[in-house]
Amino acid sequence: MHVPPQQSRGELPQRAAELIERLRARGPRVHCLTNAVAQNFTANVLLSLGCTPSMTISPAEIGVFVARADALLINLGTFDRERREAAEVAVMIAAQNNVRWVLDPVFVDRSAARAAFAQSLSERGARVVRLNAAEFSTLSGRSADREALVDYAAFRHFVVALSGKTDLVTDGVRVASIANGHPLMAKVTAMGCAGSALIAACLAVEADAWRAAAAGLTMLGVAGELAARGAQGPGSFAAAIIDALYNLDGETLLREARVT
Amino acid sequence: MHVPPQQSRGELPQRAAELIERLRARGPRVHCLTNAVAQNFTANVLLSLGCTPSMTISPAEIGVFVARADALLINLGTFDRERREAAEVAVMIAAQNNVRWVLDPVFVDRSAARAAFAQSLSERGARVVRLNAAEFSTLSGRSADREALVDYAAFRHFVVALSGKTDLVTDGVRVASIANGHPLMAKVTAMGCAGSALIAACLAVEADAWRAAAAGLTMLGVAGELAARGAQGPGSFAAAIIDALYNLDGETLLREARVT
Amino acid sequence: MHVPPQQSRGELPQRAAELIERLRARGPRVHCLTNAVAQNFTANVLLSLGCTPSMTISPAEIGVFVARADALLINLGTFDRERREAAEVAVMIAAQNNVRWVLDPVFVDRSAARAAFAQSLSERGARVVRLNAAEFSTLSGRSADREALVDYAAFRHFVVALSGKTDLVTDGVRVASIANGHPLMAKVTAMGCAGSALIAACLAVEADAWRAAAAGLTMLGVAGELAARGAQGPGSFAAAIIDALYNLDGETLLREARVT
Repeated sequence: MHVPPQQSRGELPQRAAELIERLRARGPRVHCLTNAVAQNFTANVLLSLGCTPSMTISPAEIGVFVARADALLINLGTFDRERREAAEVAVMIAAQNNVRWVLDPVFVDRSAARAAFAQSLSERGARVVRLNAAEFSTLSGRSADREALVDYAAFRHFVVALSGKTDLVTDGVRVASIANGHPLMAKVTAMGCAGSALIAACLAVEADAWRAAAAGLTMLGVAGELAARGAQGPGSFAAAIIDALYNLDGETLLREARVT
Repeated sequence: MHVPPQQSRGELPQRAAELIERLRARGPRVHCLTNAVAQNFTANVLLSLGCTPSMTISPAEIGVFVARADALLINLGTFDRERREAAEVAVMIAAQNNVRWVLDPVFVDRSAARAAFAQSLSERGARVVRLNAAEFSTLSGRSADREALVDYAAFRHFVVALSGKTDLVTDGVRVASIANGHPLMAKVTAMGCAGSALIAACLAVEADAWRAAAAGLTMLGVAGELAARGAQGPGSFAAAIIDALYNLDGETLLREARVT
Repeated sequence: MHVPPQQSRGELPQRAAELIERLRARGPRVHCLTNAVAQNFTANVLLSLGCTPSMTISPAEIGVFVARADALLINLGTFDRERREAAEVAVMIAAQNNVRWVLDPVFVDRSAARAAFAQSLSERGARVVRLNAAEFSTLSGRSADREALVDYAAFRHFVVALSGKTDLVTDGVRVASIANGHPLMAKVTAMGCAGSALIAACLAVEADAWRAAAAGLTMLGVAGELAARGAQGPGSFAAAIIDALYNLDGETLLREARVT
């Protein structure tokens, strides 16, 4: 599993550039069990890259959607009763059908019940957990430095993707550092959720979860920088980042990526 | 009920142009029992044409909203428990109060439970069922060609409005074909749902459900073409189509409509 | 509590200008129990002014969010089962933790059950109730003129903030009249909800609920006017008002406010 740092550094932007073309060519189905605040934006982000999103949260039917999906996102942003039940079903069906999935444990730092639920879900086969520093600290009990991330990923056997000024992505051995992005991204709700959705999309077309996670966050970060160039504020920026993802090609991604 | 094709051809764009003015003059109330992904966009589409949307999904109070509405949309996009209960209430109250309604059986091709529910709902008085080819095939058991649509509409006694490259609208006798629209419409989530909402709005001001359905899809298709002219991608397009609907007048609609 | 009219007139725009800077400096946490139509737009409006929104509607965990919030919004726009339960919890926890809150009794004029619930909630410690004329009449039993507003606010011991062509804000003694705003604001769903959220944000940084309410509506009205200048319709306007709030500074607010 170990890849020497020099090799991974050169490889990641190239892989992200390939994945963006692969998403458009294959149009994977991505089921998103996500919060009501994020549903619309998440669906539009996925559509902009050629994916087919589905968003049902009903425990009665999420199973059939997950079984036929190419990847799954579970986001805990609005943690209502039906979504909790649906998450249990989704994780079980994903395991049975080998559908790879991403967990986005939104705001676990604010609610112990949510943190316990996220912990338990993550142990049931999440390939990637994407979160911010406060969420990481709540789940791992450590502050979100590079070493803690690597230890936690190695111990839990999933990829940890930390969003921040610089995103860090590790599988417990390899560490990618993504310096793309723009401050306006923190001013649009559901931007982190969108990053998790892009990681799920990449998991559908890339077997290496670490590369998939790094690619998803690179796409979003580069699109954010391009979008910010013409934006007047977070309102126009939210539309512009969808446009930027839609127009993003491998060549531009390769040129703009600041991944090491 | 039979109208010779030549007559209907000339009539439909004219009728759509009248209906857009009528919507603005009367401002009908349209209740939308729709999925969480689509709620915001649907409400804004209706507001852009002068309608008053209401969106509650609570079984406890949807009855009073439907009873006072001028039309109803039932969309199955996120098929959660409360929405299923509310749909039962809404359909019953609509029948009692003669409120005409549209069914949008989103993704019935993905879930047998959803398909059965849609089938049963549609038999309880839907005036229009708007769907895509995969959804049509699931409900009717036939592939979505012109003859199958006409047969199904005649058998079921509702108007079938099929979205696709060219939209087809039939009541089992007459068939309208609407060649307006733009590929970016498929890249914005809830665009089909918005079409269904516009059909519901037109049902509120036009007694002939076939003409209403054709008019609603013509408005959306023309607005989509106008919006695409200045859009940079699906993000700016989503805002621009709302603007285009808001600025659309009968004259422009008549000039741009490609309806036969 | 009485402030002579001349004094309050000069003071309010100045206070609103100070509050907008204070919001950005302090970044208060605002918990929003709001309807699914409004959640995304509301979160983005709060983010644009530097606040940290949280939006969970789960009765099981809303308590911990409210306890740590600096202000709370309860909006009844989609009045489903879980939100009603969560509202009970939120109001109780807000009282225990002295978290000030705003009630937005959306559409109480359409549903008696909703009106009764709103009435009962408002008596449990709401600091501000923001509504339109029809909603006011339903709750108070009087038409929404200045005198009725003052009487109702004095009797109920909360601030009444009436949205309309001119907004009126009264605590039963003082009356502020805000002439800012633009007709396009009525063409974007959840704009009223956004006004209520801004009032909640201002309550987090201003002890005088009347000044907070007037400031919140002034910010939104001024941003609406600025946004309308470049908008092509309600779609581009919805993005532009977020941009305008993001770029709004105290000086501009002071220059543009028409508050007496």
